Amino acid sequence: MDRAGKLLDRISGKTAYSEGREAIVHDMVEAISTLRNRFTGSLAGIGVAVPGFITLEDGIIRNSNNLASLENFAIRDELSRRLGTPVILENDANAAALGEQWIGAGRNVSDLVLISLGTGIGGGIISGGKILRGSHGMAGEIGHITVVPNGNPCGCGNRGCVEKHASAIAITAMARMLGLGDDLTPKEVYELALAGTEKSEKAHIIFSSMGESLGILLAMLVNTFNFPLYLVSGGLTGAWDLFAPAMIAEASRRSFTFRASFPRVEKAQLGNEAGLYGAAYLPWLG
Amino acid sequence: MDRAGKLLDRISGKTAYSEGREAIVHDMVEAISTLRNRFTGSLAGIGVAVPGFITLEDGIIRNSNNLASLENFAIRDELSRRLGTPVILENDANAAALGEQWIGAGRNVSDLVLISLGTGIGGGIISGGKILRGSHGMAGEIGHITVVPNGNPCGCGNRGCVEKHASAIAITAMARMLGLGDDLTPKEVYELALAGTEKSEKAHIIFSSMGESLGILLAMLVNTFNFPLYLVSGGLTGAWDLFAPAMIAEASRRSFTFRASFPRVEKAQLGNEAGLYGAAYLPWLG
Repeated sequence: MDRAGKLLDRISGKTAYSEGREAIVHDMVEAISTLRNRFTGSLAGIGVAVPGFITLEDGIIRNSNNLASLENFAIRDELSRRLGTPVILENDANAAALGEQWIGAGRNVSDLVLISLGTGIGGGIISGGKILRGSHGMAGEIGHITVVPNGNPCGCGNRGCVEKHASAIAITAMARMLGLGDDLTPKEVYELALAGTEKSEKAHIIFSSMGESLGILLAMLVNTFNFPLYLVSGGLTGAWDLFAPAMIAEASRRSFTFRASFPRVEKAQLGNEAGLYGAAYLPWLG
Repeated sequence: MDRAGKLLDRISGKTAYSEGREAIVHDMVEAISTLRNRFTGSLAGIGVAVPGFITLEDGIIRNSNNLASLENFAIRDELSRRLGTPVILENDANAAALGEQWIGAGRNVSDLVLISLGTGIGGGIISGGKILRGSHGMAGEIGHITVVPNGNPCGCGNRGCVEKHASAIAITAMARMLGLGDDLTPKEVYELALAGTEKSEKAHIIFSSMGESLGILLAMLVNTFNFPLYLVSGGLTGAWDLFAPAMIAEASRRSFTFRASFPRVEKAQLGNEAGLYGAAYLPWLG
């Protein structure tokens, strides 16, 4: 990536997690070295987006659901040693928010919240042009904010987390509860809503319910931050027209700051690439 | 106030609001000039804490419940002109958070949230040593965050705002609902709880309910910020022993970030003086 945000080249690859830590580190170093050797300009640094929490001082992954063998290991320093270049780690949701701010829907805005809707719900917060990380890089864990005090149980131990009421999993579960089908994807529920059959009304209710839950979250975020921009990313934004009106209406009804400050609530622009751009930008962030 | 946080002198006064804007400005300028003339050292500046929202660029009060005649008027510049000194305005809850961070319970911490419990609930957020203001100085309006989606109605248009479930007004209302008395103050409800009479159990339930509502708020703040310190201020902290255990238990149950990061949750130290100290610190904040 160059300083202007132009993607110069890429290598994609997979390492079977079962091959262990050394295989992962080796493949990452190989891929990065290969890319670097294709260019002659100076290298500002390497950014790495990680699906887990990172302590920034020592560059160590502390809590991840899927990368146990990489936890509590000096992976940043090991990558940096092998590559001979500074390496910066960042949580993937934080990196995505930074990417959108740099080169996506948040250009020219220094304060934004990114809400990522997928299987679960994640978030990244940019405040004053910088990632808001918190003490342990765990800031922005907005998927586990309570929107229904006695709502659906969550694996985190809570009940009524927004991700149990407004994620892909929640849509599938609601479709099942309403008798629409046992394992419908959000896309299938979306198509049911548009089909104009007797099932459509129930499918619409699902997206309205999703939107209302997101609206409670959005109202909280607006009251807390009073930021000018809230971005929504992830595959579920394909159903934007069905859930966004309820989301905006609920947030507006619940937050006078929303009504007084007219924040923009928009779809993110970089899709799955947001984390890639944000990670690449890390060495320039300083 | 000197740079070390020592209060050198003070003047307190009242201006009847009905006397109008000129009387208010005149009395402020008089009091400040009188204080200044008592000292020979150099003056870094004047900080003013205001119970309203302020746009920082132009130093104008935009939304206040009680200061309509001071809104949309260049009060900062007018004070500065008359005093011949830089003047900085700040929202009073933000100033209180800054005061606690400078010289109170938040010393040596650069990231904290102050939750102020009074007739209503307010908040101030310090991030990276600076006040998190948002676009219109309205950040930290945590009293209007929803903790009970279909809860008590609020004048802001929402239902279930935390300040309708955990403030002084909420305690009085709950005491009435439980038949303890029509206009009991929080202090009277507290004394009922400790009295060991048949009313005590109901009084305890009120403070547990208040604590649970605050716990939902606290969990949300911890998930969002992952800050190391959350301070609670205001007269209701006198009932800390009755509501804090429920607050902590609820936050811990609802937030894995809380359980993973062990944030400090403590009483603020400066009481009603927090805003005074924070305002005084503004000129040094830069």
